[in-house]
Amino acid sequence: MPEKLTDISRLCIHSMTTKPSSLIESIEAYSSAGIAGITVWREFLDELGVKESAARLADSDLEVVSLCRGGFFPAVDASGREAALDENRRAIEQAATIGAPMVVLVCGAIPGQALTESRKQIQDALGTLLPEAQAAGVKLAIEPLHPMYADDRSAVNTLGQANDMVEALAHPNVGIAADVYHLWWDPNLEAEIQRAGDSILAFHVSDWNTPTLNLMNDRALMGHGCINIPEIRGWVESVGFDGPIEVEIFSNRHWASDQIEYLEQIKTAYLNYV
Amino acid sequence: MPEKLTDISRLCIHSMTTKPSSLIESIEAYSSAGIAGITVWREFLDELGVKESAARLADSDLEVVSLCRGGFFPAVDASGREAALDENRRAIEQAATIGAPMVVLVCGAIPGQALTESRKQIQDALGTLLPEAQAAGVKLAIEPLHPMYADDRSAVNTLGQANDMVEALAHPNVGIAADVYHLWWDPNLEAEIQRAGDSILAFHVSDWNTPTLNLMNDRALMGHGCINIPEIRGWVESVGFDGPIEVEIFSNRHWASDQIEYLEQIKTAYLNYV
Repeated sequence: MPEKLTDISRLCIHSMTTKPSSLIESIEAYSSAGIAGITVWREFLDELGVKESAARLADSDLEVVSLCRGGFFPAVDASGREAALDENRRAIEQAATIGAPMVVLVCGAIPGQALTESRKQIQDALGTLLPEAQAAGVKLAIEPLHPMYADDRSAVNTLGQANDMVEALAHPNVGIAADVYHLWWDPNLEAEIQRAGDSILAFHVSDWNTPTLNLMNDRALMGHGCINIPEIRGWVESVGFDGPIEVEIFSNRHWASDQIEYLEQIKTAYLNYV
Repeated sequence: MPEKLTDISRLCIHSMTTKPSSLIESIEAYSSAGIAGITVWREFLDELGVKESAARLADSDLEVVSLCRGGFFPAVDASGREAALDENRRAIEQAATIGAPMVVLVCGAIPGQALTESRKQIQDALGTLLPEAQAAGVKLAIEPLHPMYADDRSAVNTLGQANDMVEALAHPNVGIAADVYHLWWDPNLEAEIQRAGDSILAFHVSDWNTPTLNLMNDRALMGHGCINIPEIRGWVESVGFDGPIEVEIFSNRHWASDQIEYLEQIKTAYLNYV
């Protein structure tokens, strides 16, 4: 087990974690709560536009950790795949504008299309985009998603598959976003984290509710589920990761609660169960 | 792809697929519909008792394919694990009584207990039970469950893990129940089916809905989801499996429908999409 976290200097929160709050409200609330970083979901840029959002972020003390999310590369035809590339070009440009060092990728899948074909399309898209991301000074972080999202969200479902893709692409601007919610069950997780090494660009935490009532929006606060988060943090830190620890919780339950009180619950959970 | 199925001579249905029907109702309905086999879930034995249920099954033309389900071996203390062994002894005895050649195992997991520890407890339990199952003329089929059930249903979440366990146990009465719903996403599936070879004792089919509204009870009829079932059937048949093809669908939607019409839908789906 790693050393216990004794302060919140590495704590980052995804704007989607406090979905009811606007970007401006979250900037103010996170700052007031002493939180170090923010990962911005793209839809939160809509209210003020990208430039004004960037200015507000720059005026705050918050570190902009990532832009979420690019990806969704597979499509049944070439025009669909071209449209996906263009959408990801916009995401890369937005990331550069708000000062986010990476775009997190939910890589995509098409129900009924072979996962092998979707992975090929994902890898091809990344091959096209990586030089452009490099020119923009932005990294692309492949996030392996839990196998329960293999139908329409991602054909990359294990850290091993993400490692395969990173190795095949062999580009300095590609890496991995490791999320305990997606990866905790994998018997090869420790070995694949060792293999990933400094490809791990981001570390996301939340917890797994028993029972889980909804495939998308029933994640738990850290410590309220069955995931041994400190063990996994120990593994990613053992390969050198010392970056922000990002709280990414989609939860109808928590979104219905007071979002300022919720930030205090997140801080307590972070200090005790991460 | 394997040869298309042109008749329903291998079609077996799980009594849980038609949950609103009693065992007697299902025996009559399946027989009338020309279905070849039935897998009996243990709770369906309660109405008449095991002996009378066995007599009714014997009087029918249905092949008794499996008893579902044993397992749930892990527990936080030794007395819990002993109780699980006793419960599985009852399942083995019930299987022998109704003429089921195997008990299908949902192996179990305890939220918060390390999956490695749960797997050790599962393997220990199987080591104890296999000689007893052999004496009773019953096989035990480990069913790897989808990773979304790793919290409290099974610490065995890939066919690779089931193969590891079968190899470690090295007993003629242990094998694997391969269910497309649990396994379809696995990039190693074809290779692990090759590795499993004649350890595959059972083959379960259903389909994956997009979106899936409920982690437990929103499976789809074959052909109504994203799983390439014929491809997977081809793989299991390429290693010699030629046994019953079992339709196991948990679905609040289908349970709310007319169960006699539903059997006809199952037959059509079976002939077109398996």
